[in-house]
Amino acid sequence: MAIPERLAGVLSPVVTPFKDDLSPDPERLVQHCRWLLSQNVGLAVFGTTSEANSLSVEEKISLLDQLVDAGIESSRLLSGTGHCALTDTVKLTTHAVSLGCAGMLMLPPFYYKDVSDDGLYRSFAEIIERVGSNDLRVYLYHIPPIAHVSIPPHLVERLVTQYPETVVGIKDSSGDWDNTDALLQLGLDDFRVFAGSETFLLQNMRGGGAGCISATANINPAAIHDLYENWQSETAETMQAELDAVRSTVEKYPMIPALKSIIGNLRGEAQWETVRPPLLTLADDQKSELLDALHELDFQMPDLID
Amino acid sequence: MAIPERLAGVLSPVVTPFKDDLSPDPERLVQHCRWLLSQNVGLAVFGTTSEANSLSVEEKISLLDQLVDAGIESSRLLSGTGHCALTDTVKLTTHAVSLGCAGMLMLPPFYYKDVSDDGLYRSFAEIIERVGSNDLRVYLYHIPPIAHVSIPPHLVERLVTQYPETVVGIKDSSGDWDNTDALLQLGLDDFRVFAGSETFLLQNMRGGGAGCISATANINPAAIHDLYENWQSETAETMQAELDAVRSTVEKYPMIPALKSIIGNLRGEAQWETVRPPLLTLADDQKSELLDALHELDFQMPDLID
Repeated sequence: MAIPERLAGVLSPVVTPFKDDLSPDPERLVQHCRWLLSQNVGLAVFGTTSEANSLSVEEKISLLDQLVDAGIESSRLLSGTGHCALTDTVKLTTHAVSLGCAGMLMLPPFYYKDVSDDGLYRSFAEIIERVGSNDLRVYLYHIPPIAHVSIPPHLVERLVTQYPETVVGIKDSSGDWDNTDALLQLGLDDFRVFAGSETFLLQNMRGGGAGCISATANINPAAIHDLYENWQSETAETMQAELDAVRSTVEKYPMIPALKSIIGNLRGEAQWETVRPPLLTLADDQKSELLDALHELDFQMPDLID
Repeated sequence: MAIPERLAGVLSPVVTPFKDDLSPDPERLVQHCRWLLSQNVGLAVFGTTSEANSLSVEEKISLLDQLVDAGIESSRLLSGTGHCALTDTVKLTTHAVSLGCAGMLMLPPFYYKDVSDDGLYRSFAEIIERVGSNDLRVYLYHIPPIAHVSIPPHLVERLVTQYPETVVGIKDSSGDWDNTDALLQLGLDDFRVFAGSETFLLQNMRGGGAGCISATANINPAAIHDLYENWQSETAETMQAELDAVRSTVEKYPMIPALKSIIGNLRGEAQWETVRPPLLTLADDQKSELLDALHELDFQMPDLID
């Protein structure tokens, strides 16, 4: 396998389809991944939007295997691997490295709160040392609104200084541009700063960022990629405004069920709407409102493929 | 195996000892459990204080097996089993039921935030239905300061109404007496309300509660049990004040490393101090301060056994 290249561009934290019995549906997942790749976005499997934290390590290992077996290039896969338990993170990360995944999107251990930065450093360091592979590429996953455990810029700097070839990027889902800016200002060599949503894509590219990893790339990948490719064009502000309109429409609803409803509607497959507890499928009236609102925006998902 | 009886009294969320390689140390765990039982407190293994969320499901299953194999009565075991992932919770709960554990201390799925009460209901219901055993006894684990996902009283009532023989109690670690009082005021038949610390033990007993499940029962079990037994005595207020003095001394430090330092000091075994990331062992000066402060209180752990 080739040495993993550092990632850039737009990645979709791929939603995980489920069957009626709530087991993961690998066929629909492969189909959705193929479509996303056809739209020029990379695959961040097992992110927050993937309901990754509602899946066991074994379920994630099995899905990764099935994606690779189905011919999805592991060089396009950024795999979420961060769990609360050290041993879980090490197990899934080791497996993802063995498959040649381009990177690991790594949450901090997120159960214990108010832990020290030294403790978080120790956690990431222990994982890196235990996986012990030159092919490991870690993208830190900073998402304080959900994890309630932060990875502040000075901790990022410390990790990159200690592991410059391993800790190579971050997804900043703080929703706080000042934090993203602080990460960019660190000036770390070839460090990849991804905005956690397309809301900050243009700003991030102007600041020297690498792109974005955004939930709505599950339904609007081509347009987001278009802005990534053309952020220096005269129409960039207009493109950003159009992306914002779609995002703000979807964001009025619980994000994961909303994305699944949109995909299910466009594919004509209600099965797509299934979510694992503690999430709930959108109510019928919410679904109608959401689809109507997107229709008003002339929103459509292009070129759905089977 | 006998049908599990509903729990009452004082339980210790048992700290989990680790070896140098950070693997769990079953021999020290068995030793500590035997000592706790000798002090008349029950065993809440795999609670927050147990660093349970830093352990994989497999590690917890293995430890449970080793406890039972070592002769620890499963009727004294309340096992933490709540994970983020439905399948993890079902797996560990099913195993704990098969061993005859008296109950399951069940966190809500705690990654996704701002989920609906319907979604949380669906989560607990799905777990109960999948485990599908008449021997399952669930004690809900409400700990919003750490989980950041709550189990409000009206959800408790809904679960108990639907599953009266299964959902039989709660540990309230909100630190908010009003919430504990609201649970007691529900007037649910034989429902066991445990305070999440001995700070509220006397108040809880006076309100009709079942006892407490408290971190500091790892080091101060006999005195806490004494108040439980004698809460109607004239000296109850004094006993409560003495418990509070010990607790407030320990609480000045990160609780889990502090407890492990105290146990390690009294047993003369520095190995006891080991914690898994993201936690850190107490610094030497913190440890000295803590032990000195406890010494000033004339605090001692009675009758350590091997």
